[in-house]
Amino acid sequence: MKAPFITFEGGEGSGKSTQIKLLGEYLKVKGVDFITTKEPGGTPLGGELRRLLVEGSADKMDAIAEALLFFADRRIHMSQKVWPALKNGQWVISDRFADSTTAYQYYAYNKRLSKEDIDMLYRFAVGDFKPDLTFILDIDPKVGLKRSFEKSESMEVKETRNENRVLTFHENLRQGYLEIAKSEPQRCVVLNADTDIKTLHAEIVRVLEERFEI
Amino acid sequence: MKAPFITFEGGEGSGKSTQIKLLGEYLKVKGVDFITTKEPGGTPLGGELRRLLVEGSADKMDAIAEALLFFADRRIHMSQKVWPALKNGQWVISDRFADSTTAYQYYAYNKRLSKEDIDMLYRFAVGDFKPDLTFILDIDPKVGLKRSFEKSESMEVKETRNENRVLTFHENLRQGYLEIAKSEPQRCVVLNADTDIKTLHAEIVRVLEERFEI
Repeated sequence: MKAPFITFEGGEGSGKSTQIKLLGEYLKVKGVDFITTKEPGGTPLGGELRRLLVEGSADKMDAIAEALLFFADRRIHMSQKVWPALKNGQWVISDRFADSTTAYQYYAYNKRLSKEDIDMLYRFAVGDFKPDLTFILDIDPKVGLKRSFEKSESMEVKETRNENRVLTFHENLRQGYLEIAKSEPQRCVVLNADTDIKTLHAEIVRVLEERFEI
Repeated sequence: MKAPFITFEGGEGSGKSTQIKLLGEYLKVKGVDFITTKEPGGTPLGGELRRLLVEGSADKMDAIAEALLFFADRRIHMSQKVWPALKNGQWVISDRFADSTTAYQYYAYNKRLSKEDIDMLYRFAVGDFKPDLTFILDIDPKVGLKRSFEKSESMEVKETRNENRVLTFHENLRQGYLEIAKSEPQRCVVLNADTDIKTLHAEIVRVLEERFEI
């Protein structure tokens, strides 16, 4: 079996990082060789880009500059980490990938970038390659933002550019993810993230065992 | 008269920065309101991108990631510095602009990026906007690299990624600039840079006085 590339998507407080951690523990027990990673900043060089993208005021750069930086980070991530790992037979689990760009830039920011431009950048940076499976952790932003706020108070670095955005923005983001899932139902699996951690983990494992040989 | 955007292009050691300095002194005497700038790194944020682009080994990222970063820098440069200055009636003189991307990525690196991809990124980042005038300082790379090497020995930060490339590369780069000039003869003026500094400066001033009201 070809090692799969699995991405986790969802708004603030949807529990992506918790679920990725639990999935890692499960895969370890099953003896699956895997890596976990994230966007932006899944590589050392990407970490410097992430810092430029998430720190400071929201108007430090415009949408076009931001998109170019996100795709530079994505290209570095794919060419230096994701593709080499997959080639090596390792599963790759990523916290966010290109659906985040579409959900944020097109849906949440009310089409501040066109889908055509996002697709064009995707083809330039990633080519025809796509994730084998994408989990979309779906949650009411009122619940998600509350979770996220509680968490961020104990975090050393507060990523204020993403956290401070208003509820409408997050409702549009949620709808965006659901639209993406509707347009690619084979790749995307929407899961209810407003549940306890173990129930959601069990759902993820169920989908995984259905799709891949573990 | 609309304030013009004037760019200087050319290989290593062609004397761009010296000529921009002299041009600035001339414009100052003439009472012209202007700024000088550069790519990459014409803005504080762009300075951080420049550092990522020029420092370290040449294989720290591939051509696609590099192009995305150059265009991110370019977008930030245009939106935060060049366009606001022009709108404000200030002339803008830039040390390198988009012709550098075409000359390096397409010609010098032997088509490692297609012209179509470079054009696509240009349209996304810059739109229809073009420089009003581009000086291409043309010099035999054997002479230019010798000049550049002598200069770099006294510089604190050596930009080794650009300086260490071989002669063939620089010959292709030179041909690339000449091809660009041929394709846009109205915008581009090729000047012989293998001459003394004052003669070249006088040529630049002559072209400028011909094109613009000073």
